[in-house]
Amino acid sequence: MMRFATVRTPDGPRVLMDRRGSRIQLPFSSMREALDAGVHEHADDYSGFEIGSGSVDLAPAVVDPGKVICVGHNYRAHILEMGHPLPEVPNVFSKFTTALVGPDDPISLWTDSAAWDWEAELALVVGRRVHRADADEARAAIAGYTVANDISARDWQRRSTQWLLGKTFDATTPVGPWIVTPDEVDHAADLEITCTVDGRVVQHSSTADLLFGPAELVSYLSTVMTLHPGDLVLTGTPAGVGAGRDPQVFLTPGQTVRTEIAGLGACTNECVARAGSRADKELTS
Amino acid sequence: MMRFATVRTPDGPRVLMDRRGSRIQLPFSSMREALDAGVHEHADDYSGFEIGSGSVDLAPAVVDPGKVICVGHNYRAHILEMGHPLPEVPNVFSKFTTALVGPDDPISLWTDSAAWDWEAELALVVGRRVHRADADEARAAIAGYTVANDISARDWQRRSTQWLLGKTFDATTPVGPWIVTPDEVDHAADLEITCTVDGRVVQHSSTADLLFGPAELVSYLSTVMTLHPGDLVLTGTPAGVGAGRDPQVFLTPGQTVRTEIAGLGACTNECVARAGSRADKELTS
Repeated sequence: MMRFATVRTPDGPRVLMDRRGSRIQLPFSSMREALDAGVHEHADDYSGFEIGSGSVDLAPAVVDPGKVICVGHNYRAHILEMGHPLPEVPNVFSKFTTALVGPDDPISLWTDSAAWDWEAELALVVGRRVHRADADEARAAIAGYTVANDISARDWQRRSTQWLLGKTFDATTPVGPWIVTPDEVDHAADLEITCTVDGRVVQHSSTADLLFGPAELVSYLSTVMTLHPGDLVLTGTPAGVGAGRDPQVFLTPGQTVRTEIAGLGACTNECVARAGSRADKELTS
Repeated sequence: MMRFATVRTPDGPRVLMDRRGSRIQLPFSSMREALDAGVHEHADDYSGFEIGSGSVDLAPAVVDPGKVICVGHNYRAHILEMGHPLPEVPNVFSKFTTALVGPDDPISLWTDSAAWDWEAELALVVGRRVHRADADEARAAIAGYTVANDISARDWQRRSTQWLLGKTFDATTPVGPWIVTPDEVDHAADLEITCTVDGRVVQHSSTADLLFGPAELVSYLSTVMTLHPGDLVLTGTPAGVGAGRDPQVFLTPGQTVRTEIAGLGACTNECVARAGSRADKELTS
């Protein structure tokens, strides 16, 4: 077992390596730096101090990715049930790093929106600088996989043609807990993905149903832009979002969203109301 | 006159301050850091070595912004001539830092697209951390103004509903040359904006025609997300883009795009073909 997380310490964020069961805190303050140095490819070359198996305070798996790239409509069953044809190319948008939270952090339900929805997603983390990667290069450029939930403010997402603002409210997108190396999970070829709200299953599918798989996405995206270590790609969500139900169902404060992918772990996040008032300003750190 | 640029030196990027005509190289390697330290608000507190008036090699005004936020459809005359109603809210999307080039750098026309188009834009640079800023706070949070061109691959922009990929090809978006402090240009209330291609005027308007002005945009965006020093906001383009012509006109290699805003300066960029082949990989640094 080889996996990496970002842990909050009194000295700031540090990269944690779980190498065959022993947890080692590495001398990297950023997952970007650690991946750029190749920790995921040469784990045995690195040392640090071993920490116990007690609880740690986990930050987003990558705190400061250079890019957070998101893909819409990417599970076959979901696309077909919505009556859409299968798209020929991925529909790609983004969010900013200010949206990210750790795997056990609260999700902020800002009162600016009345339509907070869940989107359980497999995320991949880039491990090598690539541009115009073919399929093999793209596969080799993936450092590992983690869990994310692309929590969306549907009303803001649909205010205009571009979805960005509905996707990038501060402190709304859990990412973590661990980045698991590809060999551990066969490149996420067939992993069970589940989202529950207060224990009730709202999404349940397999990454085998992804229309555009991880390596294919990396290859496609790298046609347009150079990808760098630490870049995150959220690969899309399966059927079962609240906006797709009749009647629609949205998140409310106090609920707990659990996003789990077999072999990767789970994010467990409580929904917390955040007031969209000026008085709230000092809370938004 | 007070303005700031990022200059390429043998030791890496450095922030250059033009303080009342003397050019001083400051000990900051990043405009984000310099703005975070408040150089634009306390310029007289900073010193460095004076450089002559000779030519310098300018990088993008901000090389590594935490966010590059873009606004679509924001000049009244352009919206109305297209037969659209005036939007009630800005249409917001983004690009990645990998798209940015300096004010005198080539623009890469990747052969992946056959529809490279110009979009002259006023850009604002955030100078203070703000969240939920009111109009006054938003205005005070603007460090300055610069020139950008949101060069767009129209075919990629329209491949799917989300524009991102057509907006973020590597090395396509000039930003610079200088970030001019707001007092020098009355917060860009009425600046002539001009785009020429090989000397022929293709866009010509005034920032007075902006539907959502700079402070209004900062206030609106900061409802959703915390803005940080160095964040860039491209405020939209006036009428005259190539895709809006009949017949449509697009950029070709060898052409020179000049993007000028009175009081801020100009970007002058030659269009250079970049082959979308694997052999090109080593060129994309």
